[in-house]
Amino acid sequence: MDFGPIEWRPKFATKQGENALCAPTPFLAIKEEEMMKNMNKMMELMKQWPNVDLRPHFKAHKSVDIAKQQIKLGAVGICCQTLTEAESAVYGGSIEDVFISNEVIGVGKVKRVVQLALKSKISICVDNEENIKDLSQLAKESNANLDLVIEVNVGQDRCGIKPGADVVPLAKLVESLPNVHFKGIQAYHGWNQHVRSAAERKERTNTVAGLAQKTVECLQSANIKCPYITGGGTGTFPYEAGTGLFTEIQPGSYVFMDADYNRNLNEKETFYSGFVQSLFIYTTVQSITGDERAVVDSGMKAASLDSGPPLVAGKEDSVIYHSGGDEHGILRPNDGFKVGQVIQLIPGHCDPTVNLHDVYYLIDGNEKVKAILPVNARDAGV
Amino acid sequence: MDFGPIEWRPKFATKQGENALCAPTPFLAIKEEEMMKNMNKMMELMKQWPNVDLRPHFKAHKSVDIAKQQIKLGAVGICCQTLTEAESAVYGGSIEDVFISNEVIGVGKVKRVVQLALKSKISICVDNEENIKDLSQLAKESNANLDLVIEVNVGQDRCGIKPGADVVPLAKLVESLPNVHFKGIQAYHGWNQHVRSAAERKERTNTVAGLAQKTVECLQSANIKCPYITGGGTGTFPYEAGTGLFTEIQPGSYVFMDADYNRNLNEKETFYSGFVQSLFIYTTVQSITGDERAVVDSGMKAASLDSGPPLVAGKEDSVIYHSGGDEHGILRPNDGFKVGQVIQLIPGHCDPTVNLHDVYYLIDGNEKVKAILPVNARDAGV
Repeated sequence: MDFGPIEWRPKFATKQGENALCAPTPFLAIKEEEMMKNMNKMMELMKQWPNVDLRPHFKAHKSVDIAKQQIKLGAVGICCQTLTEAESAVYGGSIEDVFISNEVIGVGKVKRVVQLALKSKISICVDNEENIKDLSQLAKESNANLDLVIEVNVGQDRCGIKPGADVVPLAKLVESLPNVHFKGIQAYHGWNQHVRSAAERKERTNTVAGLAQKTVECLQSANIKCPYITGGGTGTFPYEAGTGLFTEIQPGSYVFMDADYNRNLNEKETFYSGFVQSLFIYTTVQSITGDERAVVDSGMKAASLDSGPPLVAGKEDSVIYHSGGDEHGILRPNDGFKVGQVIQLIPGHCDPTVNLHDVYYLIDGNEKVKAILPVNARDAGV
Repeated sequence: MDFGPIEWRPKFATKQGENALCAPTPFLAIKEEEMMKNMNKMMELMKQWPNVDLRPHFKAHKSVDIAKQQIKLGAVGICCQTLTEAESAVYGGSIEDVFISNEVIGVGKVKRVVQLALKSKISICVDNEENIKDLSQLAKESNANLDLVIEVNVGQDRCGIKPGADVVPLAKLVESLPNVHFKGIQAYHGWNQHVRSAAERKERTNTVAGLAQKTVECLQSANIKCPYITGGGTGTFPYEAGTGLFTEIQPGSYVFMDADYNRNLNEKETFYSGFVQSLFIYTTVQSITGDERAVVDSGMKAASLDSGPPLVAGKEDSVIYHSGGDEHGILRPNDGFKVGQVIQLIPGHCDPTVNLHDVYYLIDGNEKVKAILPVNARDAGV
């Protein structure tokens, strides 16, 4: 892949061309060849859905360099989940088309979104009247334009309005106000991504699509066009794309994969057979106790445990990672590990793991560091 | 408290003197008065153990400003858990006495520790012969001196050698090598901190102290002095301090407290009765669904969920925070919250929550921002 200027900091003490095993652990490594395989596989899959756009989710990698590569290969733009992500993409990467797949609340943040819209094409999710009025008023004051996407709760029970008729007054409100434009609806169901059986993911996606369809019909009955229907993550995107209803999908994790998504692959679903693990946590063994355990320097601060622990690459079935607190992982049994040895972990869940790190080491097949890519939008979620 | 120069960044858009409620959420707020109450309470408690030093753990707050305040009030120095923490404290704060309560493994990291030892007094935990040899050799090459503390596994089953006779050959090795000095032992048991019953915490600490005592006796039998015995966190420090064996305690969380430690307080143990919650996550309500739920903009990226979810301050018993993924928390029921309202969460576990944030807003009783303090050592655990 192409990559931009490198951000150097003393604590990431490996130079381009050096072996990654010389870098201080824990750190995140991207195996470039594997990541490119995933990106190319996705573009290959997209060919069968000519009326569906790919808008990959920036929240998976938070990297301007990777986002640019995705756009170069054919993505129409990116999704962001937070204002900081969108600012990183627009100011840090000059990305021209950003959809914030989440509500942006409060005058301070709305002002910042409006500033972004003076530089790039920005769309945002909404589910609340007052927020829509704020967006319109502040956009008007700055002579900016925002596309608004009404979020519909299709079963995740997080944000979004009820599917169906409630969409109409909200869409009419948007259409009645200056400097905001009704673009369409978001029908995304996060938990469905992680259901193990491909057949069940497909069935659940059909339920989601049914609720989206019902909402679109309400808009049509009110003579409101709905040209944009977005949803679908790495676990379900082929099913959304295959409905003929969704116009855009927003998978993110596919570039990296993780232990959780890899468990979905056990189904050998055709769509997923070409995706491979490209993201690893490199960690050093710091203490051993006979054959009983080996302690590594990657704890909760290096690996998110929310979707299960990381796996030991190459020993996925024989060695188990147990939490050892903020800075330690405890591998049981000690399968011949030695103090000082650097080993590779497969993250349990890629997005929140990435958010714990400041940079990626982009490495080739010989562990050579090709670049150090900043995790541009790492933060608490502003 | 005193604080040093302020680090400003555009995304932390609140100026000194402004109301914290104007800042973009989610963010961490320290209520200064409450934090000072905790620090003073600790110094008050310490008076009853004149032979025990307080060396607070930097891993709790990762803030040079707070560490300096602790030292000003009487702490002998600080504990760090990682190299980055120690570097932040020494280079960022000129802190003169740092104990790294963890092993530092690998030539790259050992070289960095040696550089630190040219600037401040550095002690480090060890549990491995090769590592001790590396430390000695590299310290000698730089004409630096390191104090080594042998870590003993007193029941947590993480790092450390077996209690008892195994300590002797390792201490002798340290004494035989140049530029490293045997300082004593670490006998710390992390899980004991979180046992709910004060009586049980005390009993378990007595077990820990018994194992430490046995180890010290082995050293004495071999004519090796052990002038330093360190351990004890916020949950058990009064019991370690009261043994007459420990020479130093290393609590960290007491400055902030958290939902998990607050559950310990239900015992009304005299030692803990004066500690109060001083750390809060400020978050904005971004979506509501009738009385059913209110969604806030603090997810796993703002609040570590490892020790249970955060609590809603003032509604600890009536509203429950459920994980909504990386960027969302789902409060059930919606107890009259409105979209745009800023509310306060009590972190479930302070240390890993702090590590998700770049700064603290230090606020007074009127929500006025007195300073923005950097979380100097936030990182993945290098």
